[in-house]
Amino acid sequence: MDMVNEKLIDWQTAIKRNPPDQLDQLLAPIFEAKAEKAAKIIAKGLPAGPGAGSGKLYLNADRAAAAAAKGEKVLLVRNETSPEDLRGMIAAEGILTAKGGVSSHAALVARQMGKVCVCGAGALQIDYTAKTVTAAGTTYNEGDYLSINGTLGNVYAGQLPTAHSEIVQVLVEKSLDGSKSETYQMFKQLMGWCSKVTRLQVRTNADTPEQTENAIAFGATGIGLTRTEHMFFEGDRIDAMREMILAENVEDRKKALAKLLPYQRGDFAGIFKALKGLPATIRFLDPPLHEFLPHEEAGQKDLAAKMNVPVGKIQQRVKELHEFNPMLGFRGCRLGIVYPEISEMQARAIFEAAAEVQKAGIKVKPEVMIPLVGFKKELDLQAEVVHRVAKEVMAEQKVKINYMVGTMIEIPRGALTADEIAQTAEFFSFGTNDLTQTCMGMSRDDSGSFVPAYQEAEVVKANPFATVDQTGVGELMRIAVAKGNATRPGIKLGICGEHGGDPASVKFCHRIGLTYVSCSPFRVPVARLAAAQAALEEAGSKPARKPAKKLASKSGKKPAKKAARKK
Amino acid sequence: MDMVNEKLIDWQTAIKRNPPDQLDQLLAPIFEAKAEKAAKIIAKGLPAGPGAGSGKLYLNADRAAAAAAKGEKVLLVRNETSPEDLRGMIAAEGILTAKGGVSSHAALVARQMGKVCVCGAGALQIDYTAKTVTAAGTTYNEGDYLSINGTLGNVYAGQLPTAHSEIVQVLVEKSLDGSKSETYQMFKQLMGWCSKVTRLQVRTNADTPEQTENAIAFGATGIGLTRTEHMFFEGDRIDAMREMILAENVEDRKKALAKLLPYQRGDFAGIFKALKGLPATIRFLDPPLHEFLPHEEAGQKDLAAKMNVPVGKIQQRVKELHEFNPMLGFRGCRLGIVYPEISEMQARAIFEAAAEVQKAGIKVKPEVMIPLVGFKKELDLQAEVVHRVAKEVMAEQKVKINYMVGTMIEIPRGALTADEIAQTAEFFSFGTNDLTQTCMGMSRDDSGSFVPAYQEAEVVKANPFATVDQTGVGELMRIAVAKGNATRPGIKLGICGEHGGDPASVKFCHRIGLTYVSCSPFRVPVARLAAAQAALEEAGSKPARKPAKKLASKSGKKPAKKAARKK
Repeated sequence: MDMVNEKLIDWQTAIKRNPPDQLDQLLAPIFEAKAEKAAKIIAKGLPAGPGAGSGKLYLNADRAAAAAAKGEKVLLVRNETSPEDLRGMIAAEGILTAKGGVSSHAALVARQMGKVCVCGAGALQIDYTAKTVTAAGTTYNEGDYLSINGTLGNVYAGQLPTAHSEIVQVLVEKSLDGSKSETYQMFKQLMGWCSKVTRLQVRTNADTPEQTENAIAFGATGIGLTRTEHMFFEGDRIDAMREMILAENVEDRKKALAKLLPYQRGDFAGIFKALKGLPATIRFLDPPLHEFLPHEEAGQKDLAAKMNVPVGKIQQRVKELHEFNPMLGFRGCRLGIVYPEISEMQARAIFEAAAEVQKAGIKVKPEVMIPLVGFKKELDLQAEVVHRVAKEVMAEQKVKINYMVGTMIEIPRGALTADEIAQTAEFFSFGTNDLTQTCMGMSRDDSGSFVPAYQEAEVVKANPFATVDQTGVGELMRIAVAKGNATRPGIKLGICGEHGGDPASVKFCHRIGLTYVSCSPFRVPVARLAAAQAALEEAGSKPARKPAKKLASKSGKKPAKKAARKK
Repeated sequence: MDMVNEKLIDWQTAIKRNPPDQLDQLLAPIFEAKAEKAAKIIAKGLPAGPGAGSGKLYLNADRAAAAAAKGEKVLLVRNETSPEDLRGMIAAEGILTAKGGVSSHAALVARQMGKVCVCGAGALQIDYTAKTVTAAGTTYNEGDYLSINGTLGNVYAGQLPTAHSEIVQVLVEKSLDGSKSETYQMFKQLMGWCSKVTRLQVRTNADTPEQTENAIAFGATGIGLTRTEHMFFEGDRIDAMREMILAENVEDRKKALAKLLPYQRGDFAGIFKALKGLPATIRFLDPPLHEFLPHEEAGQKDLAAKMNVPVGKIQQRVKELHEFNPMLGFRGCRLGIVYPEISEMQARAIFEAAAEVQKAGIKVKPEVMIPLVGFKKELDLQAEVVHRVAKEVMAEQKVKINYMVGTMIEIPRGALTADEIAQTAEFFSFGTNDLTQTCMGMSRDDSGSFVPAYQEAEVVKANPFATVDQTGVGELMRIAVAKGNATRPGIKLGICGEHGGDPASVKFCHRIGLTYVSCSPFRVPVARLAAAQAALEEAGSKPARKPAKKLASKSGKKPAKKAARKK
C-alpha cells in the first residue's frame, strides 16, 4: 500500500501482491506479543480459526453458556463438537478440541462465527466426569484459564491479554472511529480497489442478523447460505423439533411444526431486516433427523420426562433413525419429500417474514434453496410446495414478493443432470463440501485415517475439503455450469461450501463463470481480494477499463461456456 | 422354441421373445406344486434369491454350520446378515431375514451363491436369546422346519418337498443326463443361438472353485470379480486377519499376513485350476477393517483370550476403526496405500498360485484389480507393488505369467479422470454398486427409509441398485468409456456390480461398448440372453451375418467411442 502511495506500483499490482490469507490475520484478534512470548505452550493443535482467545475452560455447552451468561469469558473445550454444542460455541471466546481436523464440526462452525479455534490438540486428556483437562503434566479444572492462538494452533496455560483487530473494532464493534485507524484506512482502500475490478460477487453464509450485519460491513452483497437447521437448537425450539421427529402421524407432526413456525418466521424477519434489500438464499432443512435427538441415556430420560412418553419410545426412534452412512441417507430434500409438511412450514415462515418486512418498507429477495437434489423430479416436488405456499401467503398478506426457487448442486447426479434440473431451478449453488465427499467417495469426518498418508505420498496436495479439487470436483462443476447455461442461459450460479472462502477456490469459481461465492462473514474480505485478483489475472495483468458494475452485468451471460471450452 | 421348430419364427426372433428374467426361474429349485398349495404361509418377505428351500431353522451361523456338517438341511434365519454369517450362509439351503431389502447383504450373497433367499419378512419376531422365531401366532424353535419360496417371497411352516431344476441337475449336480432332459435341450439350443450373435462377453463373480465351475458350465468366459475378503472369514483365517488388524507395527502386521498367504495362495490356485485358462479378475482387499473384528462383548472377550491380549485393547481398536460413514471411509485401495504390506501379500499369493498352476500345464491369466481408485497416483502406488512382486515371483519360480493390472471405476472422480487413470490401468471394471451410491449420494443400506416414497412419487422408477440409472450413473460410465478409450484405445471394459446380471443393465453395457459384464454364476444364462438380445436390437432386427467369434474380436476396438458419440 505504501508503494502505491509512493507511485512505485499501480493499485492493480498492489491487489495482485497482497496474499489473501494474510487479510485473515489482519481481521483476527491477537495476543499482546510480549505476553504470548512469555507464556508456556502446553499443547499444539491445528490452526482452525485464526486469532487469539482466552477464557475459563468449560467442558460442556450448558455450563459454558451459563458461565458466559454470568459475564465470564469462556473457552469451550471438547474432545469434538456436535450441533448440540452450538449454544456453548456461541457463548465462548474460543473453541478447543482434542480430536478432529480443520474441517471438523468445531472448525467449520468456528470459522462461520469468526471464533478462534484450535482443533485436534491430541495431547489434551479430557475427563468429562472429573471435569478436568490434563496437558504437559498439569491438570486444569473447569473454571481455570486457558488461552489459544488459532492462527498458530498453540494452547497456553493461564489468561493472556487479547486485543480485537482494529478493523473489527471499526466495522463490527464500532468501538473505534475508522478515520483514526491507519490499518482500517489501508483495508478500506484495498477493498475499494478490489470493487473496481471484481466480476465475482461475494456473499456470506449467515444464520443470524448479527452474522449478516458483520458480513455486510465486510462488503458481502447478500446471503449465499442460511442453514435453517441451526435455528432449531436454541432454547425451547429443540423441544418442538424433537416432538416433530417423534410424531407418529401427519397431524401430530403438523402440530409440532406449528410451534416452530413463529420462531423461524422471527429468525427470517431479523435476517431480512439486516439485509436491507440484499438477497438471501435460504436452505430448507438438511441434516438427518437423528442429529436432533439425544443419544445418551440421561438426555433420553430427560426428554421422555419432558414429553411424558416412555423412554423406550425415544430409544426406539433413535434406533430407527440410525443409519450406516448418514451422509448418504435420509436427509436433504428427501426429508421434505417424505414429510412435505416440513417444507410447507419452512416456506410459510419465509414468506410470512418476507411479507412482514416488506410491509415495513424494506425490500426482500428470498431465494429458496432445496438441498441434495439429484433428480429434477425431487426439485419439482419441493418447488410445487414453495410456489403454492408463496401464493397463499401473498394472497393472505396482499403483498407481492420477488422470490426464486433453486437448488444446491452437491451430489454428482445433480451436476450430471443439471440441464434437466435447470428446467425448474432458477439458480444453482454448489455445495462443494458434500460434492467433494461424494465425488471422491471420501467422508470428511473419516478421512483423517488416510489423508495424512495421502499427502505424504502426494496423492493429494491440498486438503480437498479446504481447497476445491479442480480436476475431479471441478469437472463436475464445469459440467453443471455448461449444462445449466444450456437450459437457462445466464442462470445464477453460486458456491456455498466452505471452499467459498478459500482464495484458490474463489479464483477457480471466477474462471468457470460463477456469479458469486459465499463464505463465512470473517472470510468475506479474503474472498473479495481473491475475486479481484482473479479478475486481474483473467485480464492478463492489464488495468481494467470498466467499472465493476458493468463487468458484473456481463458476467451472467456466457463465461461458463467459455470456461468449459477452455478446459 | 416350439415355434422355431415349426418354422413359424426364426431363431433370432426366438431370442428376442424370451424374457431374460424367466430363465432365472428355469434354473431355480422348486417346491412340488401340490404341497406348496396346501402349505400355510406364515409370513411374506421380498423375493431376494429365486427358488425353493426347506430346512431346520438356525439363528446363528456357527450352529447352522455345525448342523449342516451333521447332514441336516438348514435354513439360516437372521434379523439381517453380515460377513460374519458367511459360513452359515454357505452351509444353508436357504436364507431368511426379517430386515433388509433386495440389495441387503443377505440378498447379494445369496444371489452370488445361487441360494434361495427371502428378505425383510417383517412379521417374523426373532429372539436370539430364546432361540425362537414367532410368526402368525406360532413360535418355532431352532431345529423346527421352515420352507421359503424365494421366487415369491413366501415363508411356510414345516418341510415342503423340493426338486432341483433339470438344468441344474444336468450342469451343476451332473445327476441327470442332459440328453434325457427336454428342458435342458431347449436351454442348450437357446444359449447356442445367443453365442452366435453376442458381442458382449459374460463373466462371473466367483470366490471359490465351485462357483467358478458352475459359472463356466453356464457359459461364463472368465471371472470378472473375485472378492478376496470373502476368503478371510473361514476357519482359522479370521484369527490371522484379526491379528493383522490388531498389529501395532509393520513387523507384526507382516507376521500375521504371512499366516494368511498360504490360504490365499491355495484359494487362488483352486480358482485358476477351475478356470482352465480363462481370465480371472482378482480384486484386492476392499471392505473397512472393522468388518473383520467382533463388535459384541462376548466375541471380543473370546478373541482377547485367544490372542492373549486384554479385551480393552480390542475394544480400543474397534473404537479407533469406527467411522461415521464407512462406505466413504478407510477402505479400498486406501488400505493398501496405508499398509502396502497387505497388497504385497495379496500380490504374492496371486503370482505364486499362478506359477504353481502354470507349471502344472494350465494357462493362467490373472487380472489384478485395485478397488476404489479416484486418483491416478493411487493406482500408480498399488501397481508398483504388483509389478515388483510379480517380477520377484517370476524370477523365483522361473516362469513367465501373462497378467494385467487395472482398476475398478466405482467413484465419480475415477470416472471423471479416467483419461489419467488409463495411463496406468490396463482395464477398467465398473463397480456400479458403489458408483450408484456415490453418484446419487444414496447409501444402499439406508435408502429403505425414503426409496418407497420415491417410487410412489415416481422420482425413481426402478431400484437403482438393481438396474443401472442410465441417466446419472450411466453418464459417468459413458464419460469413463470415452476418456479411457481416448488414452488407451480398445481398453478392456467390464462391469462387476450386481447390475451385471440385470437384463436392462446388460443391454445398456452393450450399447456403451463394454467388453464384458460379470454376474453371479446363476445369472450367467440370463446375462447371455440379454447380451444376445442387445446385439440383435443393435443390428436392427436383421439376422447376424457373422459368427460370434468374429464379432467378438472386433468388439474391443472402437464401439465405445461410437456409443459415446451417439449420446
